Amino acid sequence: MSAGPLEGRGDARLYAGAERTFLEREAKEMTKSSGYAAYSSTTPLKPYSFERRDPGPKDVVIDIEYCGVCHSDIHQVRDEWGGSMYPIVPGHEIVGTVRAVGKEVTKLKPGDAAAVGVMVDSCRECASCRRGLEQYCEQGMVGTYNAKDRNGDITYGGYSDVIVTDEHFVYGISPKLNKAAVAPLLCAGITTYSPLKHWGAGPGKKVGVVGLGGLGHMGLKFAHSLGAHTVQFTTSAAKKEDALRLGADEVILSNDAVAMTKQKASFDLILDTVSAQHDLGTYLSMLKLDGTLVMVGLPEKPLALSTGIICVPRRSIAGSGIGGVPETQEMLSYCAEHNIVSDVEVIPIQKINEAFERVLKGDVKYRFVIDLASLKEK
Amino acid sequence: MSAGPLEGRGDARLYAGAERTFLEREAKEMTKSSGYAAYSSTTPLKPYSFERRDPGPKDVVIDIEYCGVCHSDIHQVRDEWGGSMYPIVPGHEIVGTVRAVGKEVTKLKPGDAAAVGVMVDSCRECASCRRGLEQYCEQGMVGTYNAKDRNGDITYGGYSDVIVTDEHFVYGISPKLNKAAVAPLLCAGITTYSPLKHWGAGPGKKVGVVGLGGLGHMGLKFAHSLGAHTVQFTTSAAKKEDALRLGADEVILSNDAVAMTKQKASFDLILDTVSAQHDLGTYLSMLKLDGTLVMVGLPEKPLALSTGIICVPRRSIAGSGIGGVPETQEMLSYCAEHNIVSDVEVIPIQKINEAFERVLKGDVKYRFVIDLASLKEK
Repeated sequence: MSAGPLEGRGDARLYAGAERTFLEREAKEMTKSSGYAAYSSTTPLKPYSFERRDPGPKDVVIDIEYCGVCHSDIHQVRDEWGGSMYPIVPGHEIVGTVRAVGKEVTKLKPGDAAAVGVMVDSCRECASCRRGLEQYCEQGMVGTYNAKDRNGDITYGGYSDVIVTDEHFVYGISPKLNKAAVAPLLCAGITTYSPLKHWGAGPGKKVGVVGLGGLGHMGLKFAHSLGAHTVQFTTSAAKKEDALRLGADEVILSNDAVAMTKQKASFDLILDTVSAQHDLGTYLSMLKLDGTLVMVGLPEKPLALSTGIICVPRRSIAGSGIGGVPETQEMLSYCAEHNIVSDVEVIPIQKINEAFERVLKGDVKYRFVIDLASLKEK
Repeated sequence: MSAGPLEGRGDARLYAGAERTFLEREAKEMTKSSGYAAYSSTTPLKPYSFERRDPGPKDVVIDIEYCGVCHSDIHQVRDEWGGSMYPIVPGHEIVGTVRAVGKEVTKLKPGDAAAVGVMVDSCRECASCRRGLEQYCEQGMVGTYNAKDRNGDITYGGYSDVIVTDEHFVYGISPKLNKAAVAPLLCAGITTYSPLKHWGAGPGKKVGVVGLGGLGHMGLKFAHSLGAHTVQFTTSAAKKEDALRLGADEVILSNDAVAMTKQKASFDLILDTVSAQHDLGTYLSMLKLDGTLVMVGLPEKPLALSTGIICVPRRSIAGSGIGGVPETQEMLSYCAEHNIVSDVEVIPIQKINEAFERVLKGDVKYRFVIDLASLKEK
C-alpha cells in the first residue's frame, strides 16, 4: 500500500491528468473547517476555525453530521494523559456524508453515509497493520485528534463540520440505522465488540460487564446479542431496570456483598469498562479457571494487583484497544444486521461544556452525540 | 473415583480379606515419623516427632530420602501468608523409595523410586479435578503441609523421614536421574513447566525468564529445552555466565536501561519468577501483541498495574499454580528423556535454618535439598 493521504500533499501532481474532478475544482474551499476547540486544559471549549489538508487521491472528504462525546475527549482536553497539543478539536466518533473523494478512492462515493473512528492512519506495513490490526501498529496509529500525522501535522477531530481522511480509515454505514446513534459505535462500540469477539463471548459462556456507561451499555448489548449469559455489574440501583432492558440476564449491584460473593469463580469473561479507581480482586475472584478480565476503561492511576488471585486458579487480566479497520467494518455490519445502535442524547455543540460535566457525573444515557448542524446556529 | 485415602481411616476393613499385606503387619510402626518443625513464626526449626495416618488401601508409604527447600516454606514457617498452623513440618519437593503400598494401589510397588509434590489430595469430582487440574480443585487442593486434609487433620511435609500419601498424588521417577536433583522438580519444576507448555513456549517463540533462582533456573532450562529463543533477565552480573550455561540465548541485566529498552514489544511470553516487589510495566512493555506475562513468583504485596500498557497492544498478565497430576508426571518423564534436573546444593537437615537465611539472600545455586539420611545423625 502507498504512503496514502500524504504523498501528494500540496503537490500539483494531484491535479494533473485528464480527469479533472470535483475535488480539484473545490479544493481551496474544502480545506476550510470550523468547529469547537479547547485552547487550554482549563478553559471551556469554544468556536475555532482551521484548515483541513488538501485532499489527496486516496482521501475522502466527509461533511460531519454527528460526533459522539467520549470520556477520552475530556481526558485529552484537560491534559489528564499528558502531552495534549492545543488547540484541540476533539471527537472520534464521526458520522456524516461523503462530499467528495480523491481519484483513487474505491470504497465510497459522494453522497454515501460514512464514518471515521479513533484512528486516521498507521504505518500500513508492520505485522499488526498487515493483519488488519492497525490500532496496534508497531509505529503507533495516528489518532483522529490531538495526534501528529505522518507528515507532522496535528490532527483535528469531529467536533467540526468537515474531515479529510484516507479511505482506508473511512467506514461505510448502513442507511437502515439512525446516524446519530451510530456515531458511538466508532469508539464505544468497537472497544467492546473487539474483546468480546476475541475472547469468545457467545452461547454457553458467562460474560460480565462492569460499569453501565458509554462503553458498558454497548458491551452489554453486544454480549447479549452474541448469545452469552450476560451479567451487568453496576453501582447504581437506578440503572437496574435499564440494564435488563438493554439485555442483561442478571444485574448485580456491586455494593451488595452477598450477591457479589455468589458470583465467585463463575465467569468465562468479564469486560471492565470502569475508568475510576476500583478493586480488581473482586472481579478476578469471579473468574473461572482460564477466565479473563479485560480492561477497556483506562483508569488514570495504576490499580493494585495481588498475584495470588490469578495463580489459583489460572486467570488472566488483559487489555484491549478499539479494533482494527476490518473488524470495525464487521462490527458496523453486525449492528446493521442485528439493529444495534447506541442509546444517545443528541445535543447542539453549544452544550458541549455542560455535556462534559454531565459525563463526569455519569449523567447520560448513555452517550452524548453532537448534532453538527448546530454549528450554523448563532 | 472413591473418597480415597480417608475412607478406611482407622477402619478394620482395611485389614480384612484373604490378602494380609506387609502394610497390615507393619501398620503400627509405620505411622511414627520424625522430622524438623517450626513451632512458631519466630523460632528456628527443630526436631519434631509425630504420627502419620494409618495407611488406607490406596495409600503409599514412602521413606523420604530428599526434600527440596522452597521459598514458600519460609513464607509459611514465618506466617507471611497468614493462617499458619504450628507446628509446621515444611517440605513439598519430596523424593524417596516406596516402603509399602495399600492393597488397592496399582501405580507403584515397594522399592520403587517415588515423589510427592505440593498437593496430597483434592475433591476428585469437580470440573478441574476431572480435567487432571487438581491444583485448581474448586474445593481447594490439600497442601502437602500446613493444610487440613479432607478429614480435618493437619498435613505434615517432607522435612521428615516418612510420608503416607494417596497413590493419585504420588509420582514415579526415573532411576536415570539423580534423586536429590529431582526433588525440586516437584515444585520449582512443574511451576515453570506448566505455564511454558500452556502458553506455547517452543520453536519460533521468544520467551523471557525474570529472576534466576529456584524457579527461574528451571524455567530457563525448560524454555531452552522446548526450543524457544530464551532470554534470561537477572539483577546480578555474577549470574550471567551461569545463565548462558543453563541455556539462555541472551542474558539481560535488568538494571541496564539501554539493553532493556531494546527488548521492547518483542516477547511472546515472559515468565516472571520474582517474589520481591518489582515493576510490572517494564516487562509488560516487552510483550508483543497478544503476548503474556505469567506470574509465578507470588510477591507478598500487590503490584501496581497501569492498564494503558496492556491495552495497546493487546497484552495479558496471567497467573499459574504448579501443575496437575498428569502434567507433573509428564514433566518428570520429559526430564528423564531430556536429562533435566535442578542444580542443587545438598544439605543435612541440621543446616536448615542457615539455609533459610541463605535462600533469603539469594545465596544458593539454585535449590537447597535436604538429605533426610541426616535425620539419624546426632
